Amino acid sequence: MPAVEAKIFPSDALREFSTRIFLHFGVPKNDAVQAADVLASADLRGIDSHGVARLYSYVGMLSEGHINPRPNISIVRSTMSTATVDGDNGLGLVVGPHANRIAMDMAEKAGSGWVSVSNTNHFGIAGYYVLQALERDMIGWAMTNSTSLVTPLWGMERMLGTNPIAIAFPGKEEPPIVIDMATCAAAYGKIEMARRKGEPIPLGWGIDNQGQNTTNPDDPVNGGCLLPLGSDRERGGHKGYGLAVMVDVLCGVLSGANWGPFAPPFALRQEIPKRSVGKGIGHFFGAMRIDGFIDADSFKRQIDDYVRTFRATKPAPGTSGPLIPGDPERAAERERRKNGVPLIRPIVEDLRAISRQTGIPFD
Amino acid sequence: MPAVEAKIFPSDALREFSTRIFLHFGVPKNDAVQAADVLASADLRGIDSHGVARLYSYVGMLSEGHINPRPNISIVRSTMSTATVDGDNGLGLVVGPHANRIAMDMAEKAGSGWVSVSNTNHFGIAGYYVLQALERDMIGWAMTNSTSLVTPLWGMERMLGTNPIAIAFPGKEEPPIVIDMATCAAAYGKIEMARRKGEPIPLGWGIDNQGQNTTNPDDPVNGGCLLPLGSDRERGGHKGYGLAVMVDVLCGVLSGANWGPFAPPFALRQEIPKRSVGKGIGHFFGAMRIDGFIDADSFKRQIDDYVRTFRATKPAPGTSGPLIPGDPERAAERERRKNGVPLIRPIVEDLRAISRQTGIPFD
Repeated sequence: MPAVEAKIFPSDALREFSTRIFLHFGVPKNDAVQAADVLASADLRGIDSHGVARLYSYVGMLSEGHINPRPNISIVRSTMSTATVDGDNGLGLVVGPHANRIAMDMAEKAGSGWVSVSNTNHFGIAGYYVLQALERDMIGWAMTNSTSLVTPLWGMERMLGTNPIAIAFPGKEEPPIVIDMATCAAAYGKIEMARRKGEPIPLGWGIDNQGQNTTNPDDPVNGGCLLPLGSDRERGGHKGYGLAVMVDVLCGVLSGANWGPFAPPFALRQEIPKRSVGKGIGHFFGAMRIDGFIDADSFKRQIDDYVRTFRATKPAPGTSGPLIPGDPERAAERERRKNGVPLIRPIVEDLRAISRQTGIPFD
Repeated sequence: MPAVEAKIFPSDALREFSTRIFLHFGVPKNDAVQAADVLASADLRGIDSHGVARLYSYVGMLSEGHINPRPNISIVRSTMSTATVDGDNGLGLVVGPHANRIAMDMAEKAGSGWVSVSNTNHFGIAGYYVLQALERDMIGWAMTNSTSLVTPLWGMERMLGTNPIAIAFPGKEEPPIVIDMATCAAAYGKIEMARRKGEPIPLGWGIDNQGQNTTNPDDPVNGGCLLPLGSDRERGGHKGYGLAVMVDVLCGVLSGANWGPFAPPFALRQEIPKRSVGKGIGHFFGAMRIDGFIDADSFKRQIDDYVRTFRATKPAPGTSGPLIPGDPERAAERERRKNGVPLIRPIVEDLRAISRQTGIPFD
């Protein structure tokens, strides 16, 4: 992935730049630092599409007044272990961490906490939120709906976002198991990468505007759709579709946000949906105290055993054997903390444009 | 699926037979009725592999003393919204509904309830449990781990069960959205069906005992494995693997049950794992009051809108368009309530054998 044309930046420099940009657009200090932390986490963990690469879109939305830089985030309904939060159209990078803390604080008292969030915007990587929960000896869940790109199985229309699910479990001596996955077959970023390189995409990633399976990376972008995890009926495409619906309902319908094809876009140039059925997009967070179920220390020892057992799985031919969910992101983080974050030229150009627009120096 | 050789039975006759069989093996009246209800639900909903087809295995386990017919199901740890339940090695068909009620009762008071269950056995279809929650205006979640059949991506060893996830959302005038899916690419039952018919299976379902992708349905059965949802790395097999791990940890590790390759078998002839790392297999149930987040009536109206919107998705060529999760099961139930449940010959033979063994008449 560090393409030939990549330029390397220290993570802290990118974090500092993002913070100053958010401040420039009227985001309060703590929120700007928080938002930059979510982006930095994506860049460090190798989820390049969700780090500073997104800053350009956030800036566009902020400068055009589509995102509220100083939201009044409020709890609109709650029980001991559930709440609905209205994000007041703030940055998802600010509303998300706030709502996630509410879930964890509820869990502290009631054993678990579940928060559905409306009136919010894109929140970065779902994995960020579940890593926060680990620090409090909790099992964290995070989901978000998003702009529609994915067709339901047997459809040929963008009806669902890439709707990720994340959950994490801590080990004691071994690293945590960190699951963070979109519910479509392949990330949009991978298709963009194939377009840039002029390479075909595997069958099962997307369809063209006639509803046909395609290996041309231009097709899903130009009026086609991504396919849900499982890709087709035979291989379980109805399951990926079901998971995307689950995320959409928990985030969108349950909170009173927009759902399905009505989720608003996260960047200026994207099409605005025909209808609005709620406020903004939606997130869903969960936190469960491990010791609400079992002694936290024994749980972590079992996770150590789990990790070691799965690492010892007999490898398939031509592979080095199964990974533990979270391994690739941990490897990226080790590497990038040491050597910096590679950014491809178009992203560097975007950041330079932001720099010119705001007068905040970049590299 | 109603194969040529199928014989049709009224659902109530099968339910009555199952109840009497459970009673015969010392299961108390209410529990026998409960267990038969779970099986009947699978038969009605068209999940043939999980209905009376499983009675033979349950009988084997009961008659050999591997399952406790009169379990003392207990809560071993709890907070306001979480609990761990020890199923005392009872039938999963009894322990599951009991633990699910605990989750719903907690939700009644605390907004949500989350129960991890150890020392239990196979619990039938996950969908059964989330349908129960709908009746109480709750969103229900159900998961279970199970005997290992599935390899992690890049492995060639059975390390995970088919580990299903179910969740349901009620509509007002429209039927509920009911998601109930195994986390592997294709159900074991489908491979068995292909073997019976002598037909090849699609690539992506399983591997042979050399770790190679196969279209021979005998291969995954004879020393091979099923593949996780997504099938291979390119199409997201790491995601299906991640989901299976999520289910396994929530059900197995969190409750103190066996996990991964150590989940005990559900039938006599199956291999006993080399190690035991806990008690029995595990389940995980969740229940959330809808009105803990949003007015229940507005939620249901939005689900109606959701269902209608998704039914109106532009159909892919050669299809009649996307289904709503739960549609196939609802169609089966309508048909089978009217016309009865088709059982293929080998299942009928099993039930006749049980009849001879117990003296309880069958057809």
